[in-house]
Amino acid sequence: MIRPLFDRVVLSLIEKEDKVFGGIVLPSKSQEQPIVAQVVAVGPGGLIDGKDVKIVVKVGDKVVFSKFAGTECKLDGKNYIIVRQTDILAIID
Amino acid sequence: MIRPLFDRVVLSLIEKEDKVFGGIVLPSKSQEQPIVAQVVAVGPGGLIDGKDVKIVVKVGDKVVFSKFAGTECKLDGKNYIIVRQTDILAIID
Amino acid sequence: MIRPLFDRVVLSLIEKEDKVFGGIVLPSKSQEQPIVAQVVAVGPGGLIDGKDVKIVVKVGDKVVFSKFAGTECKLDGKNYIIVRQTDILAIID
Amino acid sequence: MIRPLFDRVVLSLIEKEDKVFGGIVLPSKSQEQPIVAQVVAVGPGGLIDGKDVKIVVKVGDKVVFSKFAGTECKLDGKNYIIVRQTDILAIID
Amino acid sequence: MIRPLFDRVVLSLIEKEDKVFGGIVLPSKSQEQPIVAQVVAVGPGGLIDGKDVKIVVKVGDKVVFSKFAGTECKLDGKNYIIVRQTDILAIID
Amino acid sequence: MIRPLFDRVVLSLIEKEDKVFGGIVLPSKSQEQPIVAQVVAVGPGGLIDGKDVKIVVKVGDKVVFSKFAGTECKLDGKNYIIVRQTDILAIID
Amino acid sequence: MIRPLFDRVVLSLIEKEDKVFGGIVLPSKSQEQPIVAQVVAVGPGGLIDGKDVKIVVKVGDKVVFSKFAGTECKLDGKNYIIVRQTDILAIID
Repeated sequence: MIRPLFDRVVLSLIEKEDKVFGGIVLPSKSQEQPIVAQVVAVGPGGLIDGKDVKIVVKVGDKVVFSKFAGTECKLDGKNYIIVRQTDILAIID
Repeated sequence: MIRPLFDRVVLSLIEKEDKVFGGIVLPSKSQEQPIVAQVVAVGPGGLIDGKDVKIVVKVGDKVVFSKFAGTECKLDGKNYIIVRQTDILAIID
Repeated sequence: MIRPLFDRVVLSLIEKEDKVFGGIVLPSKSQEQPIVAQVVAVGPGGLIDGKDVKIVVKVGDKVVFSKFAGTECKLDGKNYIIVRQTDILAIID
Repeated sequence: MIRPLFDRVVLSLIEKEDKVFGGIVLPSKSQEQPIVAQVVAVGPGGLIDGKDVKIVVKVGDKVVFSKFAGTECKLDGKNYIIVRQTDILAIID
Repeated sequence: MIRPLFDRVVLSLIEKEDKVFGGIVLPSKSQEQPIVAQVVAVGPGGLIDGKDVKIVVKVGDKVVFSKFAGTECKLDGKNYIIVRQTDILAIID
Repeated sequence: MIRPLFDRVVLSLIEKEDKVFGGIVLPSKSQEQPIVAQVVAVGPGGLIDGKDVKIVVKVGDKVVFSKFAGTECKLDGKNYIIVRQTDILAIID
Repeated sequence: MIRPLFDRVVLSLIEKEDKVFGGIVLPSKSQEQPIVAQVVAVGPGGLIDGKDVKIVVKVGDKVVFSKFAGTECKLDGKNYIIVRQTDILAIID
């Protein structure tokens, strides 16, 4: 199990070729890097850098995140990206 | 439905060839990237980075935004840009 | 009508070839970009990034502003630049 | 013995060819730098840059850390990386 | 008249070939840009970016200022530089 | 005698070819710059940039420090590096 | 007379070929720029950027300062460098 620290959120990328809800995909002219993902795990929030941070995304949420954010890692053959919650721009439902 | 987080605002670009109200278009000598848009969705605001942020733009507002701001995404064939409210410079009415 | 947000100020450029009051023009050795302008519209000020900002420039003021500041846009064939009030260096009267 | 200061954490790299729990390894397309590690020593936390920092990782934790973070050093033929706790993204268990 | 805003100060450059008091001139190996100037006008100070700023330089003061600071403008054929008071390093008398 | 100011610490480099305690040396693939050193002098700490800083390293401590930190100087033919205490990562004992 | 503002300190460079006390000179492999100097004048300190700054160096002190800091100026044929007090690393006595 992966337990993010602080305000970190673990995302599972939703591949570009997937038919995602509402048809949201990345514009082909961009750097081809998918920026729609599903929340896999969330950190506890709390006092971070002297400020109280509340985690508002939940496991299972579909989210759009900032395309230059995050650190990639691989688990059992699937890609994950770990971002800070502030790098998540919107929830899609 | 796209629900922006924090102080994020989802914008729908108003194409350069459109006849926009008052005739506001981008100067042709710029990087040709339209910077006039319509507000599609707004975040809840609240305590962001330890500061209380009030959302002052409303869905439907026509806005000018900072040309290097935001993350592009595509929904049902239309382009959107997600920006922070502070990247919105002015409302046009 | 253009209504700037926060501490934004909309400026109308005063062209270099104009005979401006006191004869203030840009030095020709600079990047040729006019930095003298007239205030067209001002934002409401208020609590911005946790600090109380008072707008001290008024519509009609002639101002000098920081030459790398602002976002250009065009309205009815005239150039405007939207800057933050802190990018305005001085009022000329 | 190595005693980190402040919010520093000493990590022992887990080599890419190791079969790590859950099979977490670095994606091969990355810069080949392992970003999974084991905590070897932790700093005392406390008041750091005017903010109270609590150390939440423990010696023995397996962690994912930010790939550009840290300073490498070698001890008895093994590589270590010293990072700030905020560069640790998640605990794996 | 030029009225600087906030903590801005308008400086009149003292040309390098001038014999200035005490003989302070720029070292010839520098970028040849004069950094000794006379104060022409000062801003009102006050609450700037949430901090109370007192203006300590006066019109007529001879000052040394930071060589990369300021915005140039021309008034009636003379060069001026508008700097923030913190870019003024020393008063010469 | 060299008396560091504020939170500065004077370090005496421990050369790479030295057999240091526990055998800590720099990895040869790094930029070859030793990052293990001995504390020669420490500043008084106190209120620095509005925050109370306590000096926790002592003269004689062996320390690992951030490899890009510090200013080199030479005293009686020996190299010293002056760093801020926050550039010291760990004490070795 | 040169009166530095705020936390500025005026330094007189001690040339590299001088035999300075304790024999402190710059390492020849550096950028050849002397970083040992004598304090010529000090600013008043006080409230600077909202923080109370106390000047701890005195006229006549020999100091080591950060090699990329400061603005050079020339007075009666001698070189001076004006730095902020925080760019002074240590006093030598």
